[in-house]
Amino acid sequence: MPLDKAATKQKFVDEFSVLVEELREILVQYKMPQEAIDWYTRSLNYNTPGGKLNRGLSVVDTYCILKGVDLETIPADEYKKVALLGWCIELLQAFFLVSDDMMDASKTRRDQPCWYLVPGVDNIAINDSFMLEGAIYVLLKKHFRQDSYYVDLLDLFHEVTFQTELGQLLDLITSDEEHVDLDKYTLEKHSFIVRFKTAYYSFYLPVALAMFMVGINDDADLDQVRDVLIPLGEYFQVQDDFLDCFGTPEQIGKIGTDIKDNKCSWVVNQALLKATPEQRQLLDTNYGQKSDECEQKCKDLFVSMGIEQIYTEYEEKIVGELKAKIEKIDESRGLKKDVLTSFLGKVYKRSK
Amino acid sequence: MPLDKAATKQKFVDEFSVLVEELREILVQYKMPQEAIDWYTRSLNYNTPGGKLNRGLSVVDTYCILKGVDLETIPADEYKKVALLGWCIELLQAFFLVSDDMMDASKTRRDQPCWYLVPGVDNIAINDSFMLEGAIYVLLKKHFRQDSYYVDLLDLFHEVTFQTELGQLLDLITSDEEHVDLDKYTLEKHSFIVRFKTAYYSFYLPVALAMFMVGINDDADLDQVRDVLIPLGEYFQVQDDFLDCFGTPEQIGKIGTDIKDNKCSWVVNQALLKATPEQRQLLDTNYGQKSDECEQKCKDLFVSMGIEQIYTEYEEKIVGELKAKIEKIDESRGLKKDVLTSFLGKVYKRSK
Repeated sequence: MPLDKAATKQKFVDEFSVLVEELREILVQYKMPQEAIDWYTRSLNYNTPGGKLNRGLSVVDTYCILKGVDLETIPADEYKKVALLGWCIELLQAFFLVSDDMMDASKTRRDQPCWYLVPGVDNIAINDSFMLEGAIYVLLKKHFRQDSYYVDLLDLFHEVTFQTELGQLLDLITSDEEHVDLDKYTLEKHSFIVRFKTAYYSFYLPVALAMFMVGINDDADLDQVRDVLIPLGEYFQVQDDFLDCFGTPEQIGKIGTDIKDNKCSWVVNQALLKATPEQRQLLDTNYGQKSDECEQKCKDLFVSMGIEQIYTEYEEKIVGELKAKIEKIDESRGLKKDVLTSFLGKVYKRSK
Repeated sequence: MPLDKAATKQKFVDEFSVLVEELREILVQYKMPQEAIDWYTRSLNYNTPGGKLNRGLSVVDTYCILKGVDLETIPADEYKKVALLGWCIELLQAFFLVSDDMMDASKTRRDQPCWYLVPGVDNIAINDSFMLEGAIYVLLKKHFRQDSYYVDLLDLFHEVTFQTELGQLLDLITSDEEHVDLDKYTLEKHSFIVRFKTAYYSFYLPVALAMFMVGINDDADLDQVRDVLIPLGEYFQVQDDFLDCFGTPEQIGKIGTDIKDNKCSWVVNQALLKATPEQRQLLDTNYGQKSDECEQKCKDLFVSMGIEQIYTEYEEKIVGELKAKIEKIDESRGLKKDVLTSFLGKVYKRSK
């Protein structure tokens, strides 16, 4: 009987402590003083697991689909390598989250204080974020240096990391919490930000990593999956923006703050697109303000403008387009449509 | 007639604007909005040139020595690649400096405000530092992807970056400006910090990069240069610590602040080693305090303890050891002693 979802996740989680031990061992070889080894261990454990692990698990999922095997039939040493690639994405994510939280002055992350707010950490968190990224390359070198696709893995991580940083840069210079200026927002910029800041590392990276490990590395195949996964990642983020405003706290597991935080969200961008001068005036006055009253005024406006209907139409359109694109995928070199259908299913059902 | 020092530097500096243009071009290909391209350009220009460029120029120097050619006889496309490797070290340095300045809450760098203090930048500087590092891999991929040693360059940059971050971590958790605790300091820890935080990227990295490009890549040769350059880098930093306390502002081009900043400096470590209980008491009370009076008391103590003499003896000993090690270098695979003699000469004469 195939492993269920919880067991699949547990198997993946179990690998993490092994990786931490390997990283500790590298520091021991460098004769690093114990206090620094302990600090790094604490940072790795505090910042890397604890999320939904969707990105990491996607590498394993994709690998199984491409190989056409069930998880439990993968040899142990092979599973270890796939899981390691998954954890490398989670480390990349940890690097981004630790630093994003500092840049956004966030307070909590995954129901605990942000790492830089943990007593004694403060700005050391900047260097800790670097070392979370550094762990990726230490682990890749240890486990993949002898593989023909090692250099492809490095190029891929570099490319996706840089793309994410580009997206973060544009997000930061567009959404200035202190100087609210809705003129800076456009749907085009929103699309760019979410594709670069989220879609590449969350959607394209897991699939591309699994493909390299399976040996499907033709540029045409990487292009095929990118052409589906980047718009799919954008749709995921649009959905996220929509639910931040219109979802219930039970539905999204948190209280949305995009309006108060002056976020360049899909919702406000849609509103800006068709706002009358009066509606625009209301947004200029109330969007990005820290008060509940201002937030409610924005929400009421969004409802009156029919943003929910616009979202439903957007969703039906993009899902239709993605299904059509997936249908046309050329499987002749080993790529499988199922990889992409599986991703689309996970995103689509979130809002159902 | 060979190029003089100023012309050599100018030739190297001239390459930088070409690299900035190449990086801008990558962003244009990504269809990045103009404001983000301009921001990145400004960060690159503000943070990368402007220093002494010793690390970058060392790659060019080393390359010339290993090839046995004068700078002006190197073909233009070859020079471009060597200079690019040099600039990659300067980009790595820029990444470290921008982030170090935030972690240390520094005010100025190279006679201008630290980047994070430039109006409008603030915490965006964290992401900017990432993108300075990211530039390295964009440029290496563009210019070296087809070379057999491309993967060696990537491994080397990863290794040295991680080592530097390890050194920075130990430095940060050892020198806490708010809680002065000299018990945390030892000469052994000082040695570890300066080797990891400075010596690998400032001394070993430029030579190893030039070696890979020339084709000298035997592990035995990399070990030979590392065995000289890491202690040499440590000596350089010990000298830096010494001059921070005992050098005149004219000599070192700045006013030393290690005592006030509670730095785990070679000087205080030497003093701790032989301090009487009374002298230790004086240090506990006055080291790391922000007052001129406390600083002077520490300096007077260091003088009375004969730290200058200890430094002179240290210097003679280490220089002797390094010369002996260089003498024994095996040149059979193409490595040349001159590479190391040249480095030693630059450091030794700083204090003469």
